[in-house]
Amino acid sequence: MDRMYEELVKQVNMLEIFKARRVVEQAIKRTHLTHYKMLSDELGAHLYVKHENHLPTNSFKVRGAVNFMANISPEIQKQGIVVATRGNHGLAVAWAAQARGVFCNVVVPENNNPDINAAILSYGAQLIENGRDFYETQDYCEELAENTGLHYLRQGNDPLLINGTATMGLEIFEELPDVEAIIIPIGGGSGCAALARVIEGINPGVELIGVQAERMPSFYESWRQGKKVIVPAAETVAEGLAARSVFEVPFMILKDRITDVVLLNEEELINGVKMALRYTQNLAEVAGAAALAGAFKIRDRLVGKKVVTVMSGANLSVPRLTQILN
Amino acid sequence: MDRMYEELVKQVNMLEIFKARRVVEQAIKRTHLTHYKMLSDELGAHLYVKHENHLPTNSFKVRGAVNFMANISPEIQKQGIVVATRGNHGLAVAWAAQARGVFCNVVVPENNNPDINAAILSYGAQLIENGRDFYETQDYCEELAENTGLHYLRQGNDPLLINGTATMGLEIFEELPDVEAIIIPIGGGSGCAALARVIEGINPGVELIGVQAERMPSFYESWRQGKKVIVPAAETVAEGLAARSVFEVPFMILKDRITDVVLLNEEELINGVKMALRYTQNLAEVAGAAALAGAFKIRDRLVGKKVVTVMSGANLSVPRLTQILN
Repeated sequence: MDRMYEELVKQVNMLEIFKARRVVEQAIKRTHLTHYKMLSDELGAHLYVKHENHLPTNSFKVRGAVNFMANISPEIQKQGIVVATRGNHGLAVAWAAQARGVFCNVVVPENNNPDINAAILSYGAQLIENGRDFYETQDYCEELAENTGLHYLRQGNDPLLINGTATMGLEIFEELPDVEAIIIPIGGGSGCAALARVIEGINPGVELIGVQAERMPSFYESWRQGKKVIVPAAETVAEGLAARSVFEVPFMILKDRITDVVLLNEEELINGVKMALRYTQNLAEVAGAAALAGAFKIRDRLVGKKVVTVMSGANLSVPRLTQILN
Repeated sequence: MDRMYEELVKQVNMLEIFKARRVVEQAIKRTHLTHYKMLSDELGAHLYVKHENHLPTNSFKVRGAVNFMANISPEIQKQGIVVATRGNHGLAVAWAAQARGVFCNVVVPENNNPDINAAILSYGAQLIENGRDFYETQDYCEELAENTGLHYLRQGNDPLLINGTATMGLEIFEELPDVEAIIIPIGGGSGCAALARVIEGINPGVELIGVQAERMPSFYESWRQGKKVIVPAAETVAEGLAARSVFEVPFMILKDRITDVVLLNEEELINGVKMALRYTQNLAEVAGAAALAGAFKIRDRLVGKKVVTVMSGANLSVPRLTQILN
């Protein structure tokens, strides 16, 4: 198993990232890297936001999905794919699959956000509701793939997904070559790992800082203990960060490369969303605003630096937004 | 007076718009023109949103301000400028002035949105609070300009502002040349007039539809009556549309060119913001979401068409957002 992951880790590299860029830039537009003056003044640093929330399906995940579809094998193209998701991964894959005419099945837990389900359906995917929680959903998805021959596209460990996501990093360096720190939320770790590879290739001196929810510190604990740790399920407002464990490939890439991991409590996470609304006029999902909140938490270490925070997604439901504001 | 406006009207033309593009594209990035699948399905048309809300200072106004600053005379460059604003115009001019090192004074009414005021200050402008309402603010601004020699940069009638704003239209046609209808909110009318000129130059068959608040139908009444009409001040949630009268130059450009004007009541305006949040995951100010709400109001006429709605701005305060959601 470890040998297999090591092989996958090698497939995440600058050559493949540059190849990914050629297909990603055909399908989606560069996202804005916006300098915010008032936030910079408050933070005491030069603060830029990488607006991955403006991408189709409203998250960075679409970069990986586009790269996967562009490199799909004829067998999978013919047979179709299946994914398990609560949101962003499924939205991204359904969108990219529709553009390529690939049969796409999306398995979501029962009681999933109905707006997310409706959006997945609008992208022409087949929606399957199964599992009382995401772990049951994943089990069902695995079973379905085995019984039907559909390709199970797991988020996290697929080099095509990670290399596609890494195009975000290229865009950051092209526009702000002297960036000094990049802050990004960590769920399963694939976004952060993608950036790690780009940083390694272009300027290893750049600090890479991950942000997690204090209530589900799966990457943080794994990183501290030097091995994959599974944390108990817990409630957090940051659904996008609520991963009980890190994925193997991102973890192997990140464990000696990430500069630090910041943990945020629920109040800090909620404040991130409010800050995004007030100072950037952007709707961010809780995970999407976490990098911004994280920057303020470690402000002492960022003084005077050029800092990029990744606004990774915008899929916050209106009821959850209302709850956050009240 | 009319002769002067006629002269200004002539200065709004495709040649000047193409010149404007050269400077605007240096200073700000193209905004995304995003196709929304679920909204398209609901509307029964191909719906695209032009995301002017993603620009620096969060509104389309920055396009005009950038064009003005790039063409500023040495006298004004030396003496400085003054503007009257409640928000977007002042933010845009302050931002563009700072980039060019132009001394900028921004006069706002007393009790203006404190976040807007703070943002204006963060762009290095001098902030002057004067006037119980915007009309008093404008009077004071005029007086200040006369007494100090500062150049009063009025929104609405300045050809450099309108030509700069028109670069939005070029971007739309470049990306979606077969667009069939464009819907845009009308406050003073400069954004809509800018689009009118581009439509005239590229494809006069495109429908241009303006949206106003039912409570302050200043452009609508002027257009119906064929002359400038001043409507009574009224409360509306759509601050960005709350103009008691249209500006002369936009009105002269639009009066025989605009296809239709849609009036929205307060509930429809509020629903626009909710729709923008729910279906596009964007924070839009009430005026910024009005084109989207307008599209749904006239859906019968848009069936099957390629429709662009301009999301003109995102400067909605968090208290106002909270109020809208509750």
